[in-house]
Amino acid sequence: MKNIKLIISYRGTHYCGWQVQTNGITIQEIIEKAIEQLTGEQTNLIGSGRTDAGVHAIGQCANFLTDSTIPPEAFYKALNTKLPDDIRIIESQRCDQSFHSRYDAKGKSYVYKICEEHVVSPFTTDLAFHVADSLDWKAMKEAAAYFIGEHDFRSFMASGSSVKSTVRTIEEISFDKNDSLREITFKGNGFLYNMVRIMVGTLYEVGRHRIASHDIQKIILSKNRSLAGITAPAYGLYLKEVYYAN
Amino acid sequence: MKNIKLIISYRGTHYCGWQVQTNGITIQEIIEKAIEQLTGEQTNLIGSGRTDAGVHAIGQCANFLTDSTIPPEAFYKALNTKLPDDIRIIESQRCDQSFHSRYDAKGKSYVYKICEEHVVSPFTTDLAFHVADSLDWKAMKEAAAYFIGEHDFRSFMASGSSVKSTVRTIEEISFDKNDSLREITFKGNGFLYNMVRIMVGTLYEVGRHRIASHDIQKIILSKNRSLAGITAPAYGLYLKEVYYAN
Repeated sequence: MKNIKLIISYRGTHYCGWQVQTNGITIQEIIEKAIEQLTGEQTNLIGSGRTDAGVHAIGQCANFLTDSTIPPEAFYKALNTKLPDDIRIIESQRCDQSFHSRYDAKGKSYVYKICEEHVVSPFTTDLAFHVADSLDWKAMKEAAAYFIGEHDFRSFMASGSSVKSTVRTIEEISFDKNDSLREITFKGNGFLYNMVRIMVGTLYEVGRHRIASHDIQKIILSKNRSLAGITAPAYGLYLKEVYYAN
Repeated sequence: MKNIKLIISYRGTHYCGWQVQTNGITIQEIIEKAIEQLTGEQTNLIGSGRTDAGVHAIGQCANFLTDSTIPPEAFYKALNTKLPDDIRIIESQRCDQSFHSRYDAKGKSYVYKICEEHVVSPFTTDLAFHVADSLDWKAMKEAAAYFIGEHDFRSFMASGSSVKSTVRTIEEISFDKNDSLREITFKGNGFLYNMVRIMVGTLYEVGRHRIASHDIQKIILSKNRSLAGITAPAYGLYLKEVYYAN
């Protein structure tokens, strides 16, 4: 059996997220079916992590085992012929037999897109969070600096989630601007459930002066979800890259 | 009666172009229906020009007459509540009674988007022309320079079209790059039917070395459509702006 690693890009709009579930079509399921069509094999496609309904991916990573004779580096082309336009395999390669997309992930980066226009652009309706007024980006950048480093991010985790530890390290947060589209990129060793969307929702409150930049530190220390901002909409979020040891 | 001018942005993917026709839904028709829903009036919405099926607009201009008491500068918000997500009115204002979007247009600009990726991005499937190989942009820029100025662009008009004169002036062609997305912007006093798409198709042939940059001049002088390149796909084209005297 060969272990094949895929890099996947998808527009999450029409799916109930990554992971197979009973009440809607998911990306994992669509790709598993495409693999079955090609190879005749039922496989378990292991993703680096779930993405929620409406969340997009630029470089999701997943792996699966196969006995197929299709050359590993040609798998992406073959799979794309069986997949809908809004799911594309960017790359495929054979990886170590022991490689596991989820367990071996050392970190991830996410991009969150915000569109500042008085009218929602027809080209980014489901691809960015639209805000009608200009945000105070200087204050937002100051606020973002408080997230950098190792912190207990309990205040930025969706209530009801359970994990062993809520301590995570954010290595980098960067801001980019392209016309009316703003991008905030987060890189870290791991993210709690809804963590990026709650951090963005909190920065958004800073941007409209409902929360002061220097209050971020207090909100982190409070370990109280209700002090942080809204959960920013799923459709502005993109899983950008998954990092592995080599 | 008030004459109202609209600036309109639309994603052309799901429409049979701008102008009302019998065999499919058009953008003009959708907006006329929205105006009727708001005002109870049947109007003729005059666009600055047609756009073909699949072609997008960033700033199409159109005008219509109304007796409605809705304040002209608030019309865009009211119309957007009646329109689908892929058609947005960006701006509305009262204009001179004699203003005519088509007759008064002094010039237009178009953007053509080309995506250079080995796999078509799920985010630009219907929003850019995808080319699998890298194009020679240096040669394309050299070639584009031959289009600047006043020329008889008969070689760059869809065969079967009829117009009084095929002489047009291209004022400017600019190239931009943003990640894997390339943009070519054309500004001119007017464009023949399919002219931008045929110029882009010809630049594309230059970019893959099927036509030499300096051959553009010969192709213009030949007044022969068959010497120019392909008609680049509609879905890469955007009507960017319409220019008026003041």
